[in-house]
Amino acid sequence: MPRALSKLLASQGKSAVHELDTIDLHTHVYLPRYMDILRGRKDVPFVRPGIGGERLIILPAERQQMEEQRNSMTPHSASISAGRPIGGEYWDADNKIRYMNRHGIRMSVLSLANPWLDFLPLEEQVQQATLLNDDMETLCRGSSGRFLAFGVVPQDSTTAVKEVQRVASHLPHVRGVILSTAGLNGKGLDDPEMLEFYRAMDCAGLTIFLHPHYGVGNEHYGKYGHALFLALGFTFETTVAVSQLILSGLLDQVPDTLRLLLAHSGGTLPFLAGRLDSCVEHDAAIAQKLQHAPSVYLKRFYYDAVAYHEPALQCLIDFVGSDKIVFGTDHPFFPPAKDGEKETSEDLSELDWRSTLSNYEIMANMSKEVQSAMLRDNAKKLMSI
Amino acid sequence: MPRALSKLLASQGKSAVHELDTIDLHTHVYLPRYMDILRGRKDVPFVRPGIGGERLIILPAERQQMEEQRNSMTPHSASISAGRPIGGEYWDADNKIRYMNRHGIRMSVLSLANPWLDFLPLEEQVQQATLLNDDMETLCRGSSGRFLAFGVVPQDSTTAVKEVQRVASHLPHVRGVILSTAGLNGKGLDDPEMLEFYRAMDCAGLTIFLHPHYGVGNEHYGKYGHALFLALGFTFETTVAVSQLILSGLLDQVPDTLRLLLAHSGGTLPFLAGRLDSCVEHDAAIAQKLQHAPSVYLKRFYYDAVAYHEPALQCLIDFVGSDKIVFGTDHPFFPPAKDGEKETSEDLSELDWRSTLSNYEIMANMSKEVQSAMLRDNAKKLMSI
Repeated sequence: MPRALSKLLASQGKSAVHELDTIDLHTHVYLPRYMDILRGRKDVPFVRPGIGGERLIILPAERQQMEEQRNSMTPHSASISAGRPIGGEYWDADNKIRYMNRHGIRMSVLSLANPWLDFLPLEEQVQQATLLNDDMETLCRGSSGRFLAFGVVPQDSTTAVKEVQRVASHLPHVRGVILSTAGLNGKGLDDPEMLEFYRAMDCAGLTIFLHPHYGVGNEHYGKYGHALFLALGFTFETTVAVSQLILSGLLDQVPDTLRLLLAHSGGTLPFLAGRLDSCVEHDAAIAQKLQHAPSVYLKRFYYDAVAYHEPALQCLIDFVGSDKIVFGTDHPFFPPAKDGEKETSEDLSELDWRSTLSNYEIMANMSKEVQSAMLRDNAKKLMSI
Repeated sequence: MPRALSKLLASQGKSAVHELDTIDLHTHVYLPRYMDILRGRKDVPFVRPGIGGERLIILPAERQQMEEQRNSMTPHSASISAGRPIGGEYWDADNKIRYMNRHGIRMSVLSLANPWLDFLPLEEQVQQATLLNDDMETLCRGSSGRFLAFGVVPQDSTTAVKEVQRVASHLPHVRGVILSTAGLNGKGLDDPEMLEFYRAMDCAGLTIFLHPHYGVGNEHYGKYGHALFLALGFTFETTVAVSQLILSGLLDQVPDTLRLLLAHSGGTLPFLAGRLDSCVEHDAAIAQKLQHAPSVYLKRFYYDAVAYHEPALQCLIDFVGSDKIVFGTDHPFFPPAKDGEKETSEDLSELDWRSTLSNYEIMANMSKEVQSAMLRDNAKKLMSI
């Protein structure tokens, strides 16, 4: 058993991996229906046969890489080496269960991975959101209690609210919605038309899982593969979107019970909250529009523990308290075999995932109570489990 | 006496403000010669007579604001309300000394504020760097031990190295250089031509003080005054520039004794270091170019304590250790009167600066040893005091 797991089990007073009983709130799946959409496309995002199996091209940075290769190759040969290799870990529920069993995860709250439906015409988004949410409900219902889910909504406030109401009434395993930082009208979370959606989510007791995709500062990352896009672009994007939401004042028009879960430990917000407060306080025109300092709103939200080192997770705990933090893995991203080295035949669910273990490891020195809160208790409260 | 000061004094076993003996490593000045340059200009950055006194327009966001006003006014009337009101706190050494006395700061290591010389033609940069560094030496020499300084260099690696050597030989009060994230050739800190400069600085035992000015993600901040540009744009900029420097591998070609001080507690790097390590580790092409994980390089650097809340400062301490952190105020930015409300007649050095006090306050619960290290001991070591 990996050291991170055995250490965490010991401090929980347990010995077998399955006793860990973790609930994972940040874990993605490309449902088979969604894979078919991606396989049928010729532009980003899409899935193509490639070297050693299928390859997924979803990021803006990957589009750029692909276009560069296109200039020196035929279109077809360009697409076979661009993007990342993907296998069953992306769409196969049994593969996910095997991975969960190996890592002590009792329950996964699944979400469609980025870029969700954002790239489809609105009419198709409306249609696919219904179908995908129904698929998700069916998958969860048949999972013997191993899966719950975040659903998706079309990028339009009127139809999104209708889908939220349908989910709340008819899909009991779908307990929230994963949302892009672009919001529902592509104008961000601070667009006044978002208000009705926030109110509908609050009214239904459903959770918004806010997740990045587009990146901020992308013009600076090109030389360094995807490393800076994912490390910085993603976390800056969440930071910017939530800061805009707060500074817009919209949250003063929504009940403070709104359940908002921020991916990747809130991007950089737990670290920057003090500076954000200070900069707002020194800008009277902005400050006077708000009922509270930005940090007051930030402390209402939930954050996943996808922080990758202890100083960051501790900063998050110091800032919001351990009762607002839920465990996450970001599975199946950051797989154990390095990008580009994966073999098709390999079943990644039979391997130890370092990215998951590192998220366990940074909890291992904390008190049993704090661990239990983050591993499962807070998730139960947030997702009404 | 403000509560933050009295609490800090008590935990230091002291009672009078002057006994605090703080050394401030992040404190700016626009030298009179530099003010003359700004007053003689018609484009950003510049200083103009305005409502209630002179106004400073230096930020990209301010240029945009000014241009919008220009569309609805005459050019002259636009410039009188754009930017921020400035007074003696920006250029008057006696004003700085009064502010220091009030806040328990024994010594300030002065630096020219952004945007330094970046906007001048190279020939003028070379000439002005020499004059300004000489001015800084004269100011410090006559300050009875109250001032030391960071100098400036022209944005050209060859002439910059010459100026570094002149500073090291002839200007004993100038103990380092403040550097923009654009680096010396406008191509960033990861430009290979920077190597000679890094080596010259290391060889001379001088400190590079890395400071943002340009912002990252600026297209997202317009609706919210300067608040998001300063809170997020600045901190993202430092994060990006240092990450590029690390991923370029240049630091593997420079002695690990290079003294690099990062402004604003390293932007967001102490929080993101684990994620940066993970993203690099999962990108073989990037990882194999480097001798170490990014966090290994980050732990070599120094950071100011300009963090504005305790969870961030504690994160920084947990990450690099309290022996790598130095006190800073960012004076005269974030003045006690809110932007736009300041009166010309007001002498801000006679007021309590909340921004300074908040940086004291977040230290007040820490041990005496950790406080002493950050307030003065580390600064002495770093700046050879």
